[in-house]
Amino acid sequence: MTKKLRIIPLGGLGEIGKNMTVLEYGRNMIVVDCGVMFPENDLYGIDLVLPQFDYVVQNQDQLRGIVLTHGHMDHIGSLPYLLRQVKTSIYGTSLTIGMVKRQLEEGQVAQQARLHVVDETQKFQLGPFKISLFPVAHSIPGSVGLVIDTPVGAVVHTGDYKLDETPAGGRTTDLQRLRGLTPNGVLALLADSTNADKPGRTPTEKLVSDELDRLFAEARGGRIIIATFSSLLARLQEIMNLAKKHGRKVALTGRSLEENVALARELGYLKIPDRLLVDIDANVPDKQLLILSTGSQGEPRSALNRMAQGEHRQIQVKRGDTIIISGGTIPGNEEEVGRMLNKLFERGANVIYGKLATVHVSGHGSRDEMQAMLNAVQPRYLIPVHGETRHLHLHARLAESAGMPAKNVFILNNGSAWATDGESAWLDEPVVAGDVWVDGHLVGEIGVMVLEDRQRLSQDGFIVALIPVNAKNRLAGEPELISRGFPTSNGSRDLLEAARKEIKQDLNRRNKHVVQESIRDMLQNFFYRETQSRPVVLPSLIRV
Amino acid sequence: MTKKLRIIPLGGLGEIGKNMTVLEYGRNMIVVDCGVMFPENDLYGIDLVLPQFDYVVQNQDQLRGIVLTHGHMDHIGSLPYLLRQVKTSIYGTSLTIGMVKRQLEEGQVAQQARLHVVDETQKFQLGPFKISLFPVAHSIPGSVGLVIDTPVGAVVHTGDYKLDETPAGGRTTDLQRLRGLTPNGVLALLADSTNADKPGRTPTEKLVSDELDRLFAEARGGRIIIATFSSLLARLQEIMNLAKKHGRKVALTGRSLEENVALARELGYLKIPDRLLVDIDANVPDKQLLILSTGSQGEPRSALNRMAQGEHRQIQVKRGDTIIISGGTIPGNEEEVGRMLNKLFERGANVIYGKLATVHVSGHGSRDEMQAMLNAVQPRYLIPVHGETRHLHLHARLAESAGMPAKNVFILNNGSAWATDGESAWLDEPVVAGDVWVDGHLVGEIGVMVLEDRQRLSQDGFIVALIPVNAKNRLAGEPELISRGFPTSNGSRDLLEAARKEIKQDLNRRNKHVVQESIRDMLQNFFYRETQSRPVVLPSLIRV
Repeated sequence: MTKKLRIIPLGGLGEIGKNMTVLEYGRNMIVVDCGVMFPENDLYGIDLVLPQFDYVVQNQDQLRGIVLTHGHMDHIGSLPYLLRQVKTSIYGTSLTIGMVKRQLEEGQVAQQARLHVVDETQKFQLGPFKISLFPVAHSIPGSVGLVIDTPVGAVVHTGDYKLDETPAGGRTTDLQRLRGLTPNGVLALLADSTNADKPGRTPTEKLVSDELDRLFAEARGGRIIIATFSSLLARLQEIMNLAKKHGRKVALTGRSLEENVALARELGYLKIPDRLLVDIDANVPDKQLLILSTGSQGEPRSALNRMAQGEHRQIQVKRGDTIIISGGTIPGNEEEVGRMLNKLFERGANVIYGKLATVHVSGHGSRDEMQAMLNAVQPRYLIPVHGETRHLHLHARLAESAGMPAKNVFILNNGSAWATDGESAWLDEPVVAGDVWVDGHLVGEIGVMVLEDRQRLSQDGFIVALIPVNAKNRLAGEPELISRGFPTSNGSRDLLEAARKEIKQDLNRRNKHVVQESIRDMLQNFFYRETQSRPVVLPSLIRV
Repeated sequence: MTKKLRIIPLGGLGEIGKNMTVLEYGRNMIVVDCGVMFPENDLYGIDLVLPQFDYVVQNQDQLRGIVLTHGHMDHIGSLPYLLRQVKTSIYGTSLTIGMVKRQLEEGQVAQQARLHVVDETQKFQLGPFKISLFPVAHSIPGSVGLVIDTPVGAVVHTGDYKLDETPAGGRTTDLQRLRGLTPNGVLALLADSTNADKPGRTPTEKLVSDELDRLFAEARGGRIIIATFSSLLARLQEIMNLAKKHGRKVALTGRSLEENVALARELGYLKIPDRLLVDIDANVPDKQLLILSTGSQGEPRSALNRMAQGEHRQIQVKRGDTIIISGGTIPGNEEEVGRMLNKLFERGANVIYGKLATVHVSGHGSRDEMQAMLNAVQPRYLIPVHGETRHLHLHARLAESAGMPAKNVFILNNGSAWATDGESAWLDEPVVAGDVWVDGHLVGEIGVMVLEDRQRLSQDGFIVALIPVNAKNRLAGEPELISRGFPTSNGSRDLLEAARKEIKQDLNRRNKHVVQESIRDMLQNFFYRETQSRPVVLPSLIRV
């Protein structure tokens, strides 16, 4: 029997985040990327979402290594969790590996992995997979796409990319090298779908630096404060260059920013002119100071949000400050960002954000770029990856309207097992995949029921009713009610007192055994009648 | 002493929603608009936000009437609540009054108000205020701006407007009439600030109908399903005209849509060709059917979301359907809308939304239109209204950079009392203003503490510890723990069992009186140590 190649996405399909893909051939497996996802707003109390990677853990004897496309959290953030259960080798460019190293040390699993720095000139072999890298333009340096030669044909994984011809840092997506690496054609293309709903091309990063240049010139007398993603290292480089050009020193605030700058500088990804960086406490005149800050998403504890709240230890925002939010708002963060902007305006600052000027562009290519990638690669099969369901479908339709046969375009789910023998392709039985929720120290302990309870508690709070009963299970004292998140009165009416009376009347009237369920129903009806709310009601019988 | 005019916004400043403004002269007061606001996502369990209108209630003997600019909920939605406490007259154009009438009947307060339909040809006098209306283009028919002549000068309130020259329905903003109504100049302009962060002009509604025309032509064989705001009546008219043009019948789904269409038709704001409307159950071939639906915001119970979930009683989405979301996503709804889109794609529909085509435009003017309004009115004073803080500031700066003296531009808060004698202007002591939260039947009963509890419960749930104690306040039995929204185990470790042991050890070891606070602290520390979570912990001593 001919062996088959299987491609199994464990995360990143039907979602933006936790990208992770398994490639299997015979008894050999490699994994591309291992990211986390940040939870949507209604995942109450959840800090992170991991891919369910049981399939890798169970087959770890076959795992030949993990290959990373770049150092963003949605591509590397689950490694510390996976490595609690798996020992393996990890491959990536030097910045990516540098970021992974820090992550693994923080997660105390550094001894679980051998880290290998690879670059675009090398090929490396992991079992039957021969892997080459090609440079791609993305919002973090050292980003690569992968060409994976397998016994049945070449697979191309684009990673995250755009076809920016004037990117910050000058790293363009090298389609020519990609073509050179695939002289015999491409069996399957796994391609970034993030911006499949954006017509045309994603604007170049050059627009951002031109706009920043202009805004720096206008800021003259006052300080400049720029908030951006700490991983947008090429942007940071541009900002530092512009700071020097405009005669400003640069101070950093925000832990992730300080760490990333230090790391990227050490690895040579960030070239900072001598004496440009100053301490945030250094006494630099306003017109010579630029402050680089975290907090473009309005995160409560971020440096910029602390400035907005008036709670930053070193920086008080004032009239004359120019504040630039140089980062797009991630869907779901609109309200937090909006509130932060309002507070910054209130303090008199001149605040520039995305609607007002081109101070941010996406790191992902739009439809025309996706089309150009398809033209360059000309794969037999397309598997859209890295996108919500709508993006995957739009990417698929784009390919079909450009002439790809619909049967050669596969919209997969996490856990789908796409299989090919090099001649044809089909779907095997899916493997287990899903979301694993992290809440504090708890990994995977929180299930749907706990989440539903939190959801309900968030809406209407709860009431615990303590009902003293005697050995015959009859009321034997005063019921007591404990509540939180629920108002105890409506106007002059004391709702808890009224509920206590209701309990006593009910139990006395019916002169019957106290039954938890009937008290719960009675109280739920009572509170709904009074308030139209449905707090969680928990009666507890206390034997006295 | 000369009497002064006071303008007191009670809502709509520093927020998009609950617009309400008081004008006072001597012992006379009028109110412009009386809207609600829909809560942001972190106002857990809150259904609606009302302006705190105590000032109007307390001075109702001076209230000469309420004037409405248009029938959107953020301009009329608080009337049923205000009228529980106040009797008055309400003035508006016929559609606006029609919508108010329905609202007041639903709120069972119809007898509290005399409703007056007025139109743009009339002037009417409310105490010392002489009021004229001018037509404005906005996303609901019958929208007007107000010219309010007062003894110290004319005040212009723009209402919500854009300067669309080819709006649906043909109703343009009549700046010429506005100028004609203010022959002696304008003392103060209260102007819509919603889009103060959007450069240029808001695209015309004509673009939307052209795009819909094109999409209708492309949809050929299948059904067309369009979701839009039920109050976007001019858009609905366009859609119905296009349906007729493309040989389709129109079926409606969603209660608010059915009601608004009936009302607008009755009042002559919607002209529906004969036999165009069909019942949703009518057996119309797909290629001849257009379904108009609610749900452009992904609201859980809306018609379109039920289709996405496969729970709509009459409509199953299928391959071949073209689904058009003809409404912008209100900030805060991105995640719900995104999930709904994903589900609709999954069902095979061709889904068209804002990023893919011009299927919606804003009903508010952008910066160039705000500039044109300023040029037309040339007010002595500008008070930016209808906007979050950032919009008010950007509107103010726009005016200043166009030459208005900064001292003549007033950025107010809700409750600010702006006063003028016609010569100069100043701020009096502010009046009480704020948010009143509605949760079910409860109006204003939910306070910050209940909200904070809900917030905390949503993150980590709660644990109630029942501790039996004897008359000497010593442990007298087995503690019992009740929890919701908190995981009861971590791997094989039973957290509640461990906590029970911890309580017993603690109390026995220290052989002391049981003190609620110390048990709470002990349990909080225990759970934080175990999980890094901070559930609400409530110990309750049970005397046995």
